Amino acid sequence: MNKMKSLFIALLGSSISLAAMSHGQTNDEKHIAALRDKALNSNLAYDILESLTTEVGPRMAGTIQDELAVKWGVAKFKELGFDKVWTEPVEYDTWVRGSESAEITSPYPQPLKVTALGFSVGTPASGIQAEVIHFKTIEDLMAAPEGIAKGKIVFISRRMERFRNGKGYGPAVKARGAGAVEASKKGALAVVIRSIGTDSHRVPHTGMMRYKDGINKIPAAALSNPDADLLERMLARKKPVSLKLSLGAHNGPKYTSQNVIGEMTGTTYPEQKIVIGGHLDSWDLGTGAVDDGAGVALTMAAAKFIGDSKMRPKRTIRVVLWANEEQGLVGARAYAKAHQADLANHITGAESDFGAGRIYAFSSNVTEKNMPTVEKMKRLMKPLGIEYENNKAGPGPDLIPMYQLGMSVFRLSQDGTDYFDLHHTGDDTLDKVDPKALAQNVAAYIVFAYVAADSKETITRGTPVKSGR
Amino acid sequence: MNKMKSLFIALLGSSISLAAMSHGQTNDEKHIAALRDKALNSNLAYDILESLTTEVGPRMAGTIQDELAVKWGVAKFKELGFDKVWTEPVEYDTWVRGSESAEITSPYPQPLKVTALGFSVGTPASGIQAEVIHFKTIEDLMAAPEGIAKGKIVFISRRMERFRNGKGYGPAVKARGAGAVEASKKGALAVVIRSIGTDSHRVPHTGMMRYKDGINKIPAAALSNPDADLLERMLARKKPVSLKLSLGAHNGPKYTSQNVIGEMTGTTYPEQKIVIGGHLDSWDLGTGAVDDGAGVALTMAAAKFIGDSKMRPKRTIRVVLWANEEQGLVGARAYAKAHQADLANHITGAESDFGAGRIYAFSSNVTEKNMPTVEKMKRLMKPLGIEYENNKAGPGPDLIPMYQLGMSVFRLSQDGTDYFDLHHTGDDTLDKVDPKALAQNVAAYIVFAYVAADSKETITRGTPVKSGR
Repeated sequence: MNKMKSLFIALLGSSISLAAMSHGQTNDEKHIAALRDKALNSNLAYDILESLTTEVGPRMAGTIQDELAVKWGVAKFKELGFDKVWTEPVEYDTWVRGSESAEITSPYPQPLKVTALGFSVGTPASGIQAEVIHFKTIEDLMAAPEGIAKGKIVFISRRMERFRNGKGYGPAVKARGAGAVEASKKGALAVVIRSIGTDSHRVPHTGMMRYKDGINKIPAAALSNPDADLLERMLARKKPVSLKLSLGAHNGPKYTSQNVIGEMTGTTYPEQKIVIGGHLDSWDLGTGAVDDGAGVALTMAAAKFIGDSKMRPKRTIRVVLWANEEQGLVGARAYAKAHQADLANHITGAESDFGAGRIYAFSSNVTEKNMPTVEKMKRLMKPLGIEYENNKAGPGPDLIPMYQLGMSVFRLSQDGTDYFDLHHTGDDTLDKVDPKALAQNVAAYIVFAYVAADSKETITRGTPVKSGR
Repeated sequence: MNKMKSLFIALLGSSISLAAMSHGQTNDEKHIAALRDKALNSNLAYDILESLTTEVGPRMAGTIQDELAVKWGVAKFKELGFDKVWTEPVEYDTWVRGSESAEITSPYPQPLKVTALGFSVGTPASGIQAEVIHFKTIEDLMAAPEGIAKGKIVFISRRMERFRNGKGYGPAVKARGAGAVEASKKGALAVVIRSIGTDSHRVPHTGMMRYKDGINKIPAAALSNPDADLLERMLARKKPVSLKLSLGAHNGPKYTSQNVIGEMTGTTYPEQKIVIGGHLDSWDLGTGAVDDGAGVALTMAAAKFIGDSKMRPKRTIRVVLWANEEQGLVGARAYAKAHQADLANHITGAESDFGAGRIYAFSSNVTEKNMPTVEKMKRLMKPLGIEYENNKAGPGPDLIPMYQLGMSVFRLSQDGTDYFDLHHTGDDTLDKVDPKALAQNVAAYIVFAYVAADSKETITRGTPVKSGR
């Protein structure tokens, strides 16, 4: 080794420790990079997900599998060696799907693949049979004359568009949430929508709908995309089309589930927490692999890697497996209420609830003084193919209540190109998850959680906190 | 127009008629090429398929849609202007699917997506609940000791492999056809197989199974691929796995359907026929778009183009829409029996029953004297990207009975890479068909049918005819 080279290495070494010291860090970037790269080559998250989807499967709020999932979460946290593991109660109303079927009765009798929307009322046992009235969008329905759908079944056919970031969901999903109310206002007996999804399989997409006080509650269901295509082709023939819809859906009793929480304790400020996690419930049609078993598994794995490392960060990593996200962020609201007094110790967080595709970008929502922390994340995210986006991150669904109270959040953006092929369908199963992409997610969450937990300054919210709520 | 140009055109004209005369043809290759290219840019086949799948939909043998499909076929042939249109009766036993469900009852209770195999008996109304015994292949089951499956449900998990020519089907499908008999021999109460299909969707694949006299009939069903994966993962945990299977399947009454036949009459030898077609029935789960609405539509369209052309070929183009192929080539056998005395006038034929993928190759089964006809096809197929394979063509399913009696056949090989993603599932719907690929199929069938119908020599069978049957 020549003199120049050793001098260079010595300088390099001192510059690293200087840099580390200048941030007041006890753990350097090399250590985090090693953890990150270890996670990249690990199947831990996939194994956790395999366990959840195999041993629990679908876990709709209030079902037997909801209870099993809570037990599974507690046992898995303990098995993984989390420092603290506990649950917190979450109470909610439940809904029972029952049987469901639909068919064209004339002019071209054919069965259709249909699924009830969450919290839809059922039809009479003999079904509802009526002529279909077609609207391309819910906006068209809303703009139509009073009474136009009287005695008919409204069909809304708008197709959701595919984008990497899932931005086609927002404009399309309004038909699911408000279709029944708007159809009922026009006198309809029921509403069927084209599934809010980007696939072409005979797997209809379920999801929540809402009624409004004072508006007659009518049954609401989604057709699979190929069935919606078929119905559109029939309607294009300009003859009256009659449809029969039979839904056994009904409300169930109150139920108490649990947010399941596991912690890896921080070294210096153990009361301060970085919150990561995913929601433990799923819809009932698939096994909740991408929505949101993946988020559960990858955040548990990320915290496990950090907890097991020889150097822990200053702050605590709290993993929350949120109860009943699907039917209205119920676990998230209960958590925010229970922990309101401790909000200041919820330093920042990120929820993974957009499948298991590779993360391609991250964004922050912090003040200027936290930018060195963001810069550190940038350097450590870069080798994962992750670019920094901006400082205007919004919250994952289950962080909304705490975000509204002022918590800082980060967003790790997954490639969701295929997410809405599977979302809320029977097709949401383990085979759709790429273990390598899932491992990349774990590595990214390690970077985010470790750097945030170890930052010199306390991380605080960047964008203004809106008043109200 | 200058002299040179008119001289050139005159020469061109005479050279064409010379070429045509040298093959004894009244219709030249240019004419066929023009028809072919017209078909390439036409949506006719797609429109026929759209009509069949929209206005009739699923058309399982013996159902109301079986009857509607026959009416549709007759009306469509007439609408397209075929010279002769008629039907011939086909009688068979029917089968009724009824309701169907399956679930894991322990150790990890979950619902499974299942479908009964064709002609399976049902379970008792309360279902059959028993421990699962797993065999990777039907060969493993057959090699297992007597009584090994006593009181259990046999699960066969072999996965079908994907190939362009569908060669993965043969080795896999034995579990569907013979699984119930072999499981019953070992004492099983029921058999469930992994779907014979290459997809990863929650759409199980149905298809025929067979019982054997003297062997106790047990219910037989297929799990979707993701469900079979799930069951395998559960079994890998080495705890007993219990499954509950409920099938409402049962035999129905005798039914008489029809082969639907349309002809474009030949100019010189009208009694001699080139037979093309597809089967009109389908399974009940999808709308039979690729199996075999595509074959029906594209052969009707090919004959329509030939019939409408200003020069007709010497021989007749007969399009047969075969009844009840799925449950045992019933229409094909009835046809062969009814037309046995006229077999010599069935010059050659090709059935399209492998979806709607592009044709990449064709093969013949003719004598040496017919090779100029094959050469002509080669020249006209080439611009469609279709290569000649060999002179050992086997028959499409519905030509088997006539092939066994000695008829010559051709095979136009479609790209079936995705065919077994859809085959016999709910996902067999119109959206899976590429209109451009379907039009290329029509063009290829025009080349085959026209050249064969117009050949100088009568086409006769190449490979030896086996004795028996």
